[in-house]
Amino acid sequence: MWQFWALQRWKYGTAAMYKQRLDATKLKVYRRGAAKQRFGDAVFILWHPNSLLNGTSVVFHLISRSSTVFPVPVVLRGHLPLLPTTSQETKREMAVTVYGPSYSTATARVIACLEVYGVEYRQVPVDLAAAEHKQQAVLYGNPFGQVPVFEDGELKLFESRAITRYIAKKYKGNGPDLLREDNLEESAMVNIWMEVEAHQLDKAVQPIIFQLLVVPVLLGGAPDQKIVENSVKNVEKLLDVYEARLSDSKYLAGDFFSLADLNHLPYLYYLITTPYASVITSRPHVKAWWEDLLSRPACQKVTANMKR
Amino acid sequence: MWQFWALQRWKYGTAAMYKQRLDATKLKVYRRGAAKQRFGDAVFILWHPNSLLNGTSVVFHLISRSSTVFPVPVVLRGHLPLLPTTSQETKREMAVTVYGPSYSTATARVIACLEVYGVEYRQVPVDLAAAEHKQQAVLYGNPFGQVPVFEDGELKLFESRAITRYIAKKYKGNGPDLLREDNLEESAMVNIWMEVEAHQLDKAVQPIIFQLLVVPVLLGGAPDQKIVENSVKNVEKLLDVYEARLSDSKYLAGDFFSLADLNHLPYLYYLITTPYASVITSRPHVKAWWEDLLSRPACQKVTANMKR
Repeated sequence: MWQFWALQRWKYGTAAMYKQRLDATKLKVYRRGAAKQRFGDAVFILWHPNSLLNGTSVVFHLISRSSTVFPVPVVLRGHLPLLPTTSQETKREMAVTVYGPSYSTATARVIACLEVYGVEYRQVPVDLAAAEHKQQAVLYGNPFGQVPVFEDGELKLFESRAITRYIAKKYKGNGPDLLREDNLEESAMVNIWMEVEAHQLDKAVQPIIFQLLVVPVLLGGAPDQKIVENSVKNVEKLLDVYEARLSDSKYLAGDFFSLADLNHLPYLYYLITTPYASVITSRPHVKAWWEDLLSRPACQKVTANMKR
Repeated sequence: MWQFWALQRWKYGTAAMYKQRLDATKLKVYRRGAAKQRFGDAVFILWHPNSLLNGTSVVFHLISRSSTVFPVPVVLRGHLPLLPTTSQETKREMAVTVYGPSYSTATARVIACLEVYGVEYRQVPVDLAAAEHKQQAVLYGNPFGQVPVFEDGELKLFESRAITRYIAKKYKGNGPDLLREDNLEESAMVNIWMEVEAHQLDKAVQPIIFQLLVVPVLLGGAPDQKIVENSVKNVEKLLDVYEARLSDSKYLAGDFFSLADLNHLPYLYYLITTPYASVITSRPHVKAWWEDLLSRPACQKVTANMKR
């Protein structure tokens, strides 16, 4: 029997620590190696809720981190008997669950919306590097094998913008009316700018983020500067239209904050961390709108976790 | 003074013909040439409603077609004094307007939705080949210069999927409830599958349509078969998920016809006209679902016009 620290992430931003005994014979090694003998140093366990398995055990991931003996993360997987849950934990079991890592833009979009409404939720990180979302697509609840997946009781949802619509509709009473479904014209404007975000801005910003943040950091390559520059030009053209729009109204859909604004958070947040932040800051109305968005406590919390 | 036939398209599928006198001195030539002397043969005028200009004249487009003297279409533009409108025409002026050509998938998506609800509308074709939508973006009402643009009184909308949401919401009483906004879970399912269409199926099918229909027909080139084959593989993977979904429920969002189904019409219609129709017809549930969709009178009408 091996002894580890289990980091149980019940709720975004908070974590309860449990000391667990694991049966090493049940561990399934992802990467081959002498992992078994070297677990003592800097490991933690991310585990999935029991609802994904049977009622008696949970699947867990054991990942070495900042370890002196593991230069790269090593992921193990196994089953762990369920602890008897306290009543507080049972209550938490009822909360909604988001499957997806904080750095994923689509996951961040969903979490931002939950935070706006103060909805209690738990987040289950998904190891995208290990293609966990592809391998366990059906398990996670998205047949296309993408994150995030959102669980609310028996209901499983995917597609981040469909999930944020669901959250905004369900929790409207707890916060701002982000969809304006009761007003035909206002809801049309929200829908238009949600589509612009999804089909135009997302598409234009994505190659910049991929080249400048994913290629050097995750893939260890050099960014293709030509792709970056062409994409920056496309973003600039789009933001010229945004600038004109935001000169007419405080927010994209009108003089009210809506899901169309909030859905922009993740991609623009990454964009502003690149050397091309001026595409936002050089346009006064876009800049003011972006600062308004980013300054919201929900957005502050989500972007702080995207950084890590 | 030159004399032309003016084809005034008030309503999709019907057209009133007017013989007009035009002042040639007011014509603005798009392509330089001796166009003025050669108008007698096979020309017609597409014109924009007066609401786009001032109250006394309309802008018109004069396009040669199948002409013995013009091997390629020639586009002229000018102003035409408004005729006194009859009361019937005034009523038609109040109807909604769709700017965009019938072969455009996004335009067809909007028109299919109007047809489902039996909404009276007029369609103003836009000459995409002459990049008319780019040049007159602000005039048409889409700052990003894309078709379709949708006009309902003073309200101008763009982004086809935002427009179909608007139509389905406004005219719910006249036909099927395509959005299910009154039901939290059903609307979530509609939204999920609308996102799947927009972000996954559209993206996967688009290169096939471009290579097989646009490249040879409009650009006079040869399709890149490698792109086509890769895209077909992607579509097949997606349609495997559709097949599983449609084995569980009759339609994508559940056992009810929704906007998620209807939005699929234009791209799948073009796909079924290619040599890769079997990606649809070889999957029994996808095939049955597609045949159900295509057989609807609204869809029959729209696809008949896409063909032309």
